Amino acid sequence: MVLATRQNVQKVLKNFNKKEGVIVVKGKELKERDDTDVEVDFRQESSFYYLTGCAEPGFSVVIDVATERIQLIAPPVNPDDVVWMGYPDSLETLQTKYDVDEAIYSTELDARLKAASVVYTIPHFNVTFNEDVKAASEEDNKALYAAICEARIIKSDWEIEVMRKANKISSDAHIKVMEACTTNINEADLYAIFLNESNRHGAFFQSYMPIFGSGMNAATLHYNKNNASIENPTDMILVDAGCEYNYYASDITRTFPVGGKFTEEAATIYSIVLDMQKACIAELKSGAKWEDIHTTALEVAAEGLIKTGILVGEKQELLDKDVVAAFFPHGIGHMIGIDVHDVPKYCTSVERIDRPSYRYLRMRRTLAANNVVTVEPGIYFCEFMIDPVVKDEKTSKYINKEMLNKYKSVGGIRIEDNLVITEDGSYNLTTVPKEINEIEAIMEEASSKKRKLD
Amino acid sequence: MVLATRQNVQKVLKNFNKKEGVIVVKGKELKERDDTDVEVDFRQESSFYYLTGCAEPGFSVVIDVATERIQLIAPPVNPDDVVWMGYPDSLETLQTKYDVDEAIYSTELDARLKAASVVYTIPHFNVTFNEDVKAASEEDNKALYAAICEARIIKSDWEIEVMRKANKISSDAHIKVMEACTTNINEADLYAIFLNESNRHGAFFQSYMPIFGSGMNAATLHYNKNNASIENPTDMILVDAGCEYNYYASDITRTFPVGGKFTEEAATIYSIVLDMQKACIAELKSGAKWEDIHTTALEVAAEGLIKTGILVGEKQELLDKDVVAAFFPHGIGHMIGIDVHDVPKYCTSVERIDRPSYRYLRMRRTLAANNVVTVEPGIYFCEFMIDPVVKDEKTSKYINKEMLNKYKSVGGIRIEDNLVITEDGSYNLTTVPKEINEIEAIMEEASSKKRKLD
Repeated sequence: MVLATRQNVQKVLKNFNKKEGVIVVKGKELKERDDTDVEVDFRQESSFYYLTGCAEPGFSVVIDVATERIQLIAPPVNPDDVVWMGYPDSLETLQTKYDVDEAIYSTELDARLKAASVVYTIPHFNVTFNEDVKAASEEDNKALYAAICEARIIKSDWEIEVMRKANKISSDAHIKVMEACTTNINEADLYAIFLNESNRHGAFFQSYMPIFGSGMNAATLHYNKNNASIENPTDMILVDAGCEYNYYASDITRTFPVGGKFTEEAATIYSIVLDMQKACIAELKSGAKWEDIHTTALEVAAEGLIKTGILVGEKQELLDKDVVAAFFPHGIGHMIGIDVHDVPKYCTSVERIDRPSYRYLRMRRTLAANNVVTVEPGIYFCEFMIDPVVKDEKTSKYINKEMLNKYKSVGGIRIEDNLVITEDGSYNLTTVPKEINEIEAIMEEASSKKRKLD
Repeated sequence: MVLATRQNVQKVLKNFNKKEGVIVVKGKELKERDDTDVEVDFRQESSFYYLTGCAEPGFSVVIDVATERIQLIAPPVNPDDVVWMGYPDSLETLQTKYDVDEAIYSTELDARLKAASVVYTIPHFNVTFNEDVKAASEEDNKALYAAICEARIIKSDWEIEVMRKANKISSDAHIKVMEACTTNINEADLYAIFLNESNRHGAFFQSYMPIFGSGMNAATLHYNKNNASIENPTDMILVDAGCEYNYYASDITRTFPVGGKFTEEAATIYSIVLDMQKACIAELKSGAKWEDIHTTALEVAAEGLIKTGILVGEKQELLDKDVVAAFFPHGIGHMIGIDVHDVPKYCTSVERIDRPSYRYLRMRRTLAANNVVTVEPGIYFCEFMIDPVVKDEKTSKYINKEMLNKYKSVGGIRIEDNLVITEDGSYNLTTVPKEINEIEAIMEEASSKKRKLD
């Protein structure tokens, strides 16, 4: 697996319609926690990593727009550091290691930038230059950021392979969590298992703060306490967790019964969510509009919730009145790549649709081949979202309170996979099973093994 | 295990000789990584945690100097957050949970501070107040910081129990690492095992970036790449790692042979380091001077290195000429508590002694009962430190190059435990064995088990 970051630079330059000047992007420095000397785990800034593959602190990169020449800017060698850390890589080693045209020390950076006809940089990075540097306009810097983002969201084949590996590690970790799940443990025990499976495959970072929510905790969308004891075998547990492998994210959710057997109610709601996901995945392809896929999820949810008897009325009316959004309040998914919400300040900076059914949709784009997206429908029995609908005299009639009561202990269910868009469809990077019978079989086999050992 | 942080507040006030006014300390906010929406793992600022036991983001504390009354300042409730995160604790719940006299929302903080005759805060936290607040002088704020630090370094019994637990988890993790160590694995595999053992006992933070250095990597004092493959069974591996449990640090180093059997050379150097540690520990007690303990380590190292034949000459002359410091260049240890180097901006801000043998000594204090310290002597064969001594015509004669060559593949050895100072001695919180025969027995038993399973 070669990290061909030079291809990334070429894609960015193709998107960036400029003829001259240089682009400078600064990587991150090593930081210490508060007023201590405890170093915070170093994680390189994403766009800098995208352009260089360099995960070391204190580096920058200069890219010549006309010649596509890449210069890596290394921090100066500090003799005191050599005693404690050994010799850093030589400039020659850095040049080869990161496949750049030249590596120079940062002491030469000012002269390099001064000589450029214009210097572009990512606007919100707040890089300041000496006055004798011809800094680009805000508008041109914004165009640079757009060029980087448009490159980042169309993944190369090698990027997809890295994401496949991240998905494989996370998928296997999800299976281990299912196998280990039982009563009389804590959510934190399952979290530790997930971390261990990631770490032992070299994935020492998680892509995001994970969610291990059992029972009604699964109805809190951003639950991240992950410290409740798990007691009831018929409770569902929602696990939203994905490791980062080689700087690429995975983002996977599975929901399963603590004791390994779905109750009738849980199976019913689970099946609606799985139907939502399958319907959405069937619509993925280059040219599809993300909003339309979200609408499909809402429609399938409406049909399912009418069939259970929880919702009462005509499907279209329930959708028009945003009643379904009380059960499925978030967006159907997002781009994923070096950041879990890829690219954060770009794909998420859309004008939001001010309606409960669409308010939290993270992006509004037409999909293109080699986008990688999450598809993550859910149904939640969250009082903060459902109560206002029940109490509003205009919408109260749409909800059958008796049936709501029958199902609400299901808590919350979400199913989330990571998919690559192709010209005429998509393929799935996530390998952890999601059919009810598959999940029950995994958990039954694990508990039968445990019984034999006892 | 009750976290009696009210006792901590009382200790601070006793150290802080003021009659009126209030102390305000702000806790940390939740942060996102770079320009993304990925939340960085939240770890509360240490002094705020010491005063409150509160590990949630966005809180502050106000302490009335005259009445010892503690007010916890909670962030305001954001209705949008309630939908996603559920209801936060009520003010009544917070009051009980953190054993404070009152909990109020931060919207009331300004009025509270305005009413105070003077407001003290930790100087380097850069807290700014409205102009109508009577801010304390820089000198008084420094006195407040000293009062907090002097309280923090004298541990209560319950703090020592938390540190004992952190040491137990880390000690057991060190044993697991020894048991798993073999050739044809990577340093990162052992790191993952250590993390897993920490995580599964609820210690999701490490106290510092750990060191897993095999072969000559162990001679690089701050080696933290932790990604080399381990190939040679006679190589030594140095593991410096300690988890944080309930916000209290552990900091333990063990060095052992990859293949489980010490070579003659490794055993010789190891024994010198163990002798250094035992001699230092024997001197620990209330009233002992930290510099003197460091000197003891240098003396035992000198004797040992003379006996092996690596050093040539009279002990005192070798010490006076700082030749021993080329093999033992760092300090003998440091205070440890909520921060691994406790208290960072306080205990480490001593005037350093400008001599190679003492330059890196982290503190120069007289020990007191209930200080907790690390004792961590080491001997390293690091070219950056030894070569200048060999090449300097004034010191070259003190080193026997032939013997140096015989021993240098030992790389580096350090042994580090965490000890509590008492009136007439100390006791050890670290439980992982360190005698050569004990380590060999642990590793032999593990590999014999593995052989049986094959």
